[in-house]
Amino acid sequence: MSVESITSLQNPRIKNLVRLRDRRPRDKQKVFPVEGFRAIRRALEQRVPILELYYAPDWFLGTNETEVIDRVAASGARLFELSKPVFAKIAYRDRPEGLLAMVDQWETTLSDLKLGTPPFLLVVESIEKPGNLGTILRSADAAGVDAVIVCDPVTDLFNPNVVRSSTGVLFAVDVAVAPSKTVLEWLRERKIRIAATTPHTRNVYTRADLTGPLAIVMGSEQHGLSGTWLDACDQPIRIPMAGQADSLNVAMATLVTLFEAVRQRGTDAY
Amino acid sequence: MSVESITSLQNPRIKNLVRLRDRRPRDKQKVFPVEGFRAIRRALEQRVPILELYYAPDWFLGTNETEVIDRVAASGARLFELSKPVFAKIAYRDRPEGLLAMVDQWETTLSDLKLGTPPFLLVVESIEKPGNLGTILRSADAAGVDAVIVCDPVTDLFNPNVVRSSTGVLFAVDVAVAPSKTVLEWLRERKIRIAATTPHTRNVYTRADLTGPLAIVMGSEQHGLSGTWLDACDQPIRIPMAGQADSLNVAMATLVTLFEAVRQRGTDAY
Repeated sequence: MSVESITSLQNPRIKNLVRLRDRRPRDKQKVFPVEGFRAIRRALEQRVPILELYYAPDWFLGTNETEVIDRVAASGARLFELSKPVFAKIAYRDRPEGLLAMVDQWETTLSDLKLGTPPFLLVVESIEKPGNLGTILRSADAAGVDAVIVCDPVTDLFNPNVVRSSTGVLFAVDVAVAPSKTVLEWLRERKIRIAATTPHTRNVYTRADLTGPLAIVMGSEQHGLSGTWLDACDQPIRIPMAGQADSLNVAMATLVTLFEAVRQRGTDAY
Repeated sequence: MSVESITSLQNPRIKNLVRLRDRRPRDKQKVFPVEGFRAIRRALEQRVPILELYYAPDWFLGTNETEVIDRVAASGARLFELSKPVFAKIAYRDRPEGLLAMVDQWETTLSDLKLGTPPFLLVVESIEKPGNLGTILRSADAAGVDAVIVCDPVTDLFNPNVVRSSTGVLFAVDVAVAPSKTVLEWLRERKIRIAATTPHTRNVYTRADLTGPLAIVMGSEQHGLSGTWLDACDQPIRIPMAGQADSLNVAMATLVTLFEAVRQRGTDAY
C-alpha cells in the first residue's frame, strides 16, 4: 500500500484540515474530518466511503490501529503518515489517538428517509450545542427510531464535536435536515402524530399516547420549541421533574421521552 | 467590603488553587474549587459555606456577577480580585467566567442520609469519568431520589469536572460515599430491594417492579457491576437497546432507569 509522508506544518493538506474545523469550508468542500479509532471503525462498518486517512503511529494508544489502517487502505482511500507534531496540529481532541479520516458529506433530504410501520421519528429544532446533538443521535439509535430530523440547525451535522459526541453513531442513524415548516407539512401528509415537549402543559409524557405513527419533537436549549411546533402539535407533553428546574438538559429530556415511547410501543427489542 | 488584589502568578494562593486540581491536595486540605456563575449561585442557594471567592471582572460575561460577589461577601467569605492572566491560570474551564469559589468539603457518610417513605436510592459503583458522575447527579436530582450512594469511587465527588458537569446539583443532592460491601449490608438492614442493571439478564426494566423500598444500582463504564452486586441483588434488570451496543453510556442508562422508576412510583411530581 502506498503511503505519503507529511512532516511539515506548512503542508497544504494540513492547513486545509485545520480549516475544516469551520463550517463554511466544510460545506464548500462537502467533506468532514472524523477523528479517533471508534468513529472511524464505525464509518467502515457502515460502509461510509473514506477519502483520505491521516495517521501518526507516535500517538497510537494500542495495537488495533494497524487493522483499521489496512481496512481503510483496502477500501481505496489515500494514506498519509504524519509526524507527531503535525498530527497534533490537525487533531481536535485533547488526547489524539493518531487517526483522522476525511469523509464525504452525504445528502440529508427528507425524501430519502425510510419509514417503519408505524413510523417512529425524532425531530429536533435548532439545537445549539454540538455535544447535545451528538448525544441525541446516540439516544435515537438506542431507541431504534426510523430517523432523526434536524430542523433549522444551528450546529451542522458534520461538526467535529457532533461526530465525536455521537461516538460515530452519526454513520448509523438516518438523518434528514430541513426547515421546521417543511417538516411539519411532510409529517401531516403522512398522518404522523406530533408530540411536542414543553414545560408549559399539564400533560405528563407517560400518560400521553406515544404509540402509532409518531414524531417526538424537542426544542432548543435556550428557547424550547417555537410556535410553529407548539401550535401545530397533536399533543404537548412534559416530563415532571423533582429538584432543580434545569437538571435535565435537552439531550437528557430527549432520551427519557424516547424510551417511554419505546416502552409503550413494545418493540422487538423486548 | 474588603478585597485583596492579586496580580502575580507567583502568589502562593494562586499556586495552591492550581494544585487543587489534583485529588490528594484537595482531600488533605478538605476544600475544593467551584467555578462559574451557575455553580456558585447554587452553592449560595443551598447555603453551602464559601470560604474564599476569587474573581476577575475582565472575564465577566454579564452584569449578574456583582450580585453574586455581594452575596458571597455578605456570607463572610474572603474576597480576592484577580488580573485577567492570573484568573486564566486558576480557571479550569476553557471559557472562564471570572468567578471561582473555594468551598469546604463535607462529610458523606451513610448514617447522615434521610430516607423517604418508601426509600428510593441510586447506587453507583466505581464510576470512572467525572463527567458521567456529574450527569448522574443531575439525573438523580431530576428523578427526586432520596440520595445517591457512590461506592468505591474512582473519581472523587469534589473533582472539578464533577462539579462542572453536575452544574452545581452536587450542592443540592444528598450523597454518601462508602465501600460496596458496607452499602449492601446497610440496604439489607433497611429491607431496601436492590435492582441491579446488567446486559446479562432477560428481565426488562419496564417489566420489573420498581415500586416500594428501592435501590437502583449501576456499574462502572468499563466493567459494569461487580459480583458483589450481581450476586446479592433482588432483581437484575436490563434496558433493551436497538442500534449500536454502546449507544447508551452509564449516565444515559441511569437516567432511563430512574425515570422508569419514577413512572412506576407515581410520585408527587405527577
